[in-house]
Amino acid sequence: MSLDTAATKPHERLAEALSSEMDQVNALIRTRMASEHAPRIPEVTAHLVEAGGKRLRPMLTLATAKMCGYEGPYHVHLAATVEFIHTATLLHDDVVDESSQRRGRPTANLLWDNQSSVLVGDYLFARSFQLMVEAGSLRVLDILSNAAATIAEGEVLQLTAARNLATDEDVYLRVILGKTAALFSAATEVGGVIAGQPEAVSDALFQYGEALGVAFQIVDDYLDYAGTDATGKNVGDDFRERKLTLPVIKAVAVADAEERAFWVRTIEKGNQEEGDLDHALALIGRHGTLAATKAEAVAWADRAKAALDALPEHEIRTMLVDLADYVVLRIR
Amino acid sequence: MSLDTAATKPHERLAEALSSEMDQVNALIRTRMASEHAPRIPEVTAHLVEAGGKRLRPMLTLATAKMCGYEGPYHVHLAATVEFIHTATLLHDDVVDESSQRRGRPTANLLWDNQSSVLVGDYLFARSFQLMVEAGSLRVLDILSNAAATIAEGEVLQLTAARNLATDEDVYLRVILGKTAALFSAATEVGGVIAGQPEAVSDALFQYGEALGVAFQIVDDYLDYAGTDATGKNVGDDFRERKLTLPVIKAVAVADAEERAFWVRTIEKGNQEEGDLDHALALIGRHGTLAATKAEAVAWADRAKAALDALPEHEIRTMLVDLADYVVLRIR
Repeated sequence: MSLDTAATKPHERLAEALSSEMDQVNALIRTRMASEHAPRIPEVTAHLVEAGGKRLRPMLTLATAKMCGYEGPYHVHLAATVEFIHTATLLHDDVVDESSQRRGRPTANLLWDNQSSVLVGDYLFARSFQLMVEAGSLRVLDILSNAAATIAEGEVLQLTAARNLATDEDVYLRVILGKTAALFSAATEVGGVIAGQPEAVSDALFQYGEALGVAFQIVDDYLDYAGTDATGKNVGDDFRERKLTLPVIKAVAVADAEERAFWVRTIEKGNQEEGDLDHALALIGRHGTLAATKAEAVAWADRAKAALDALPEHEIRTMLVDLADYVVLRIR
Repeated sequence: MSLDTAATKPHERLAEALSSEMDQVNALIRTRMASEHAPRIPEVTAHLVEAGGKRLRPMLTLATAKMCGYEGPYHVHLAATVEFIHTATLLHDDVVDESSQRRGRPTANLLWDNQSSVLVGDYLFARSFQLMVEAGSLRVLDILSNAAATIAEGEVLQLTAARNLATDEDVYLRVILGKTAALFSAATEVGGVIAGQPEAVSDALFQYGEALGVAFQIVDDYLDYAGTDATGKNVGDDFRERKLTLPVIKAVAVADAEERAFWVRTIEKGNQEEGDLDHALALIGRHGTLAATKAEAVAWADRAKAALDALPEHEIRTMLVDLADYVVLRIR
């Protein structure tokens, strides 16, 4: 790290500090997404893996392993594992949400079909476990299989909570602890575990990853209503899909009778008309729930930073602290 | 085992010999399919798990572990693992095939929705890995994660091979080695591995499971054209879904120009009319491909039995030999 890069974004600084390891991760991903007999598999996977995501999750594993002084080869396997699990869940999510766009490109379920997305997701999930087994740590396998179960549980909960105005902030938090934070926390924790760190350290890394993941998802849900062009997201996707996220949950909680009738019609009954998104945005504005949502994201980012307080000074630690700030900076 | 049960079917004799272990497996399955936060998960799982399947795959794990003298508790975990992987693949298969019936009952994707089937399948898959991790054997984890990847690979290959008249017997075999035989062979192999058997034994158990699985699937595909009421299958499902299975692959291979045009229209183009299934059955009859398919199933069952030759005499071994015979006896 030279001083003249100090102004770049923290995930870019992490990518720079970990560039040789990330190259190994990318090479391993390319090798392991192959299939001798079923060329459809690498086609579908490449579409997603090479779409130019930030690789935030595998980078977190590399970062925590490096910060903990790990010198073996298996953080690369675990980082690839984390990215495969993430990719598998994206493939399945797009089927579940019937999405047609991700990261500004058509989704795999649109380019191929739902069948391919389901089965290639299953393949990547199995491949992720093969990679973990190679790393040879039962504790890591335990952490990541628990995370995989928690992710799926959060997704199912989201499915049953959607379109249901009874979904409150507790349910919302449980959903995002599962669908988003579980993989962040597993990614950061296994970096410490593979480096043989004591439980106090791996726990702190878990706490950091979990809080970062929650902040990240709250910001995502915030941007879905407040979005800017820079995010590449369409404002109102969650509204149209009748998902209950924090800005709406908070608005429903203080709705008067007329407002409640609006949410019942648009979210519960799905009877949406032109102008409804604008009215939803007006209600959200009236009750200041975007500001309140932002405050929660900031609080979780602060929790993420606090979890790192117990750990010794390290240039990577500084980047992880900055990353927590940056995640919520996106919305300022 | 008393003599007066000698006339019962081999899987029933296995179920009797392993009844206390199967009770433990069923109890473990019920415990682990629970979810504190997402009640949809046990609802969907129970629909499938309690539909009264024969539990053939977990029974194979219990059988081989017992035959190998295993006295620990973890064969129960591995048997439940195998059933969870099987259940997860059934949930995803029914989404992929757009099926509405399984084992004579409506499928989960029909009763709930595709979303639930995809996500609950993911949950069970993750749960299966948690169970394996508890068993604490990296070699078992290796075997079962390889099997999971091979299953998904076989399913993707089936997807791309469907509707394609170029699909030959080699491709067909590769598909069923993946989608069916991989879980059978993993189920039998891990029973020997958990019992600490030498590789010669676990290899023989793998060979048995693989050949049994191939025989089982060929018989399934045979019955789809030859079916009787006893099987609960509808004749012609594979034809309507334009899947290329052995009876048709063999008929296509010897088709004259007119017959080939028929297969192109019905399977490749999917332009099916009333009477087409009857015509397909007539072509299959004309070329004797059902008999040839049956002969292949018998040959694979013989291979399964031969794999057990190297193993010492045991009452369970006798039942496994009989099971291989019984699998193809279904079609006589």
